[in-house]
Amino acid sequence: DKKYIKLNTNESPFAPSELVERAVAKSCAELMLYPDPECTELRRTIADYYNVKESMVAVGCGSDEILSFCFNAFFHDKGVLFPDITYGFYEVYAELYHIPYTKIPLSDDFSVNVGEYCGKDRNIVLANPNAPTGIALDNGNIEKIIASNPESVVVIDEAYADFSNESAVELVHKYDNLIIVRTFSKSRSLAGARVGFCIASEELICDILTIKNSTNPYNLSRMACAAAQAAISDDEYYKKCRDEVIAVREDVKRELKALGFDLTDSRANFVFAKTNRMAGRELAQRLRDRGILVRRFDTDRIEDHLRITVGSRGEMEALVLAVREILNL
Amino acid sequence: DKKYIKLNTNESPFAPSELVERAVAKSCAELMLYPDPECTELRRTIADYYNVKESMVAVGCGSDEILSFCFNAFFHDKGVLFPDITYGFYEVYAELYHIPYTKIPLSDDFSVNVGEYCGKDRNIVLANPNAPTGIALDNGNIEKIIASNPESVVVIDEAYADFSNESAVELVHKYDNLIIVRTFSKSRSLAGARVGFCIASEELICDILTIKNSTNPYNLSRMACAAAQAAISDDEYYKKCRDEVIAVREDVKRELKALGFDLTDSRANFVFAKTNRMAGRELAQRLRDRGILVRRFDTDRIEDHLRITVGSRGEMEALVLAVREILNL
Repeated sequence: DKKYIKLNTNESPFAPSELVERAVAKSCAELMLYPDPECTELRRTIADYYNVKESMVAVGCGSDEILSFCFNAFFHDKGVLFPDITYGFYEVYAELYHIPYTKIPLSDDFSVNVGEYCGKDRNIVLANPNAPTGIALDNGNIEKIIASNPESVVVIDEAYADFSNESAVELVHKYDNLIIVRTFSKSRSLAGARVGFCIASEELICDILTIKNSTNPYNLSRMACAAAQAAISDDEYYKKCRDEVIAVREDVKRELKALGFDLTDSRANFVFAKTNRMAGRELAQRLRDRGILVRRFDTDRIEDHLRITVGSRGEMEALVLAVREILNL
Repeated sequence: DKKYIKLNTNESPFAPSELVERAVAKSCAELMLYPDPECTELRRTIADYYNVKESMVAVGCGSDEILSFCFNAFFHDKGVLFPDITYGFYEVYAELYHIPYTKIPLSDDFSVNVGEYCGKDRNIVLANPNAPTGIALDNGNIEKIIASNPESVVVIDEAYADFSNESAVELVHKYDNLIIVRTFSKSRSLAGARVGFCIASEELICDILTIKNSTNPYNLSRMACAAAQAAISDDEYYKKCRDEVIAVREDVKRELKALGFDLTDSRANFVFAKTNRMAGRELAQRLRDRGILVRRFDTDRIEDHLRITVGSRGEMEALVLAVREILNL
């Protein structure tokens, strides 16, 4: 029951906008009624924000549910490609739905080998920025992959894209085989509300809604819809939060580099770092002993890396101090 | 945008307990953090209420998600039996998961033929009370079905059981092949919050949690957990609501009977009624024209029946008045 500094699940250090609590409280008055199964208002709000049609948006219980719909709706036929080091749930969904999959190794510098995804006639899912590396592909490379697999579905998982200042959302107008997946959990401070969404051509959204309607037509509560809508409406607040996370991230990268760490150029709300002075497992354990939780993966090539969420400035100062003490620097 | 009297989806006419809004508002302060994926507190609250161990409870996004988990976890092997007239989603899930199923006709009086489910060595799902008939089996008959299919899983969907004053929950201590499915949507006035649960042996719950964890580990938001916990804690309020629904239901049954309707002995929060004076489709349409929504099914044998939710006393007076005017009684 110790109070930890939680830098292990990429949550936002900032509370949701004040508008969220107000909207949620208001939604409680009608909790005895089923929610709108179409989530019309929320989808319209998202559509307006991203300049697409409402019929090009689907919402789900976190981006995990959206990803699960995508795997089940589109990947059975030709299987799916994704990097060997990426969001762990891609493999879980592929296994769950018995979908054939190929893991394509990242380069030695952990970047995605764009050429390995071009003209493959296979479905593709890429997190951009990738997790846990934080490395982002630019839109030119994303477009190459989409354009060269016209008969397959390409899912770009932009869970962390708000921290990268780049997004492929606008490409949905040009390519009907592209699905952009997004979440309210990170940049909108709503991990506890479970809301994700995707933007794609009407045809793909229609297939996703078919899956949704035969599994759980009322997948979003009235409270979740209200929270997400309010979060979109207070863009100014969230922009400030994002800018702060990005500024703190760059400072932490600089400080850890000065302490001899190897870091990727993360464009997400976490850094991905390793030191030659101590094994990752031990460093993670020693940080935990001091009340700081970070994430380590038992995965080949990255077992000595730590994925460290960008928390508040105070939390990151505590992290850097702890690292210096542990490593005697 | 007309204001309808909604008697078509079996929602509660009563708002949730005041404790719900307070608990939900409180949960908003930590919405930037992921919820507990185990939903420990909510499961403990439910377990205490039903006198079972916490490890015998699983929670989901509405009882629909729980049912979907059950179908996917247990029914693939031997397929599943359910009545020809029952909750429509059983067939949807069977189709979705490619599970073989047999629909067993209800008797002419719409009761479940208990003998047809005994000793079949097949998985079984029964809504009790059944929907849309409202007819309930007593625990003696439920136990016969469970006991005579020891190598199969028997799911008893008790979505409406709180209105029947009978439940098979206590049988989970005696039979490890029984799953009781419940929802907060009806008797707890939380259709808009999306919370359902099931109670079963530890072994079956463990299998359900495996499915949950590979599809959507964070399936309940912090707000949904808070709402459901608060609803359980204000049992006195909900007992009053249920007693009122039951009293109004019995009055409506009596009044419609006096107008010449045939009615089942519904033990749910709806009545199931038909008149020989007018086709069901026409009566439903005429009620809609007067601003009252009821549910009709395009299903063999019940196309002339209406399923009418038990709303507030005032709403039911409006319904009876409208029926008299439409039928010139």
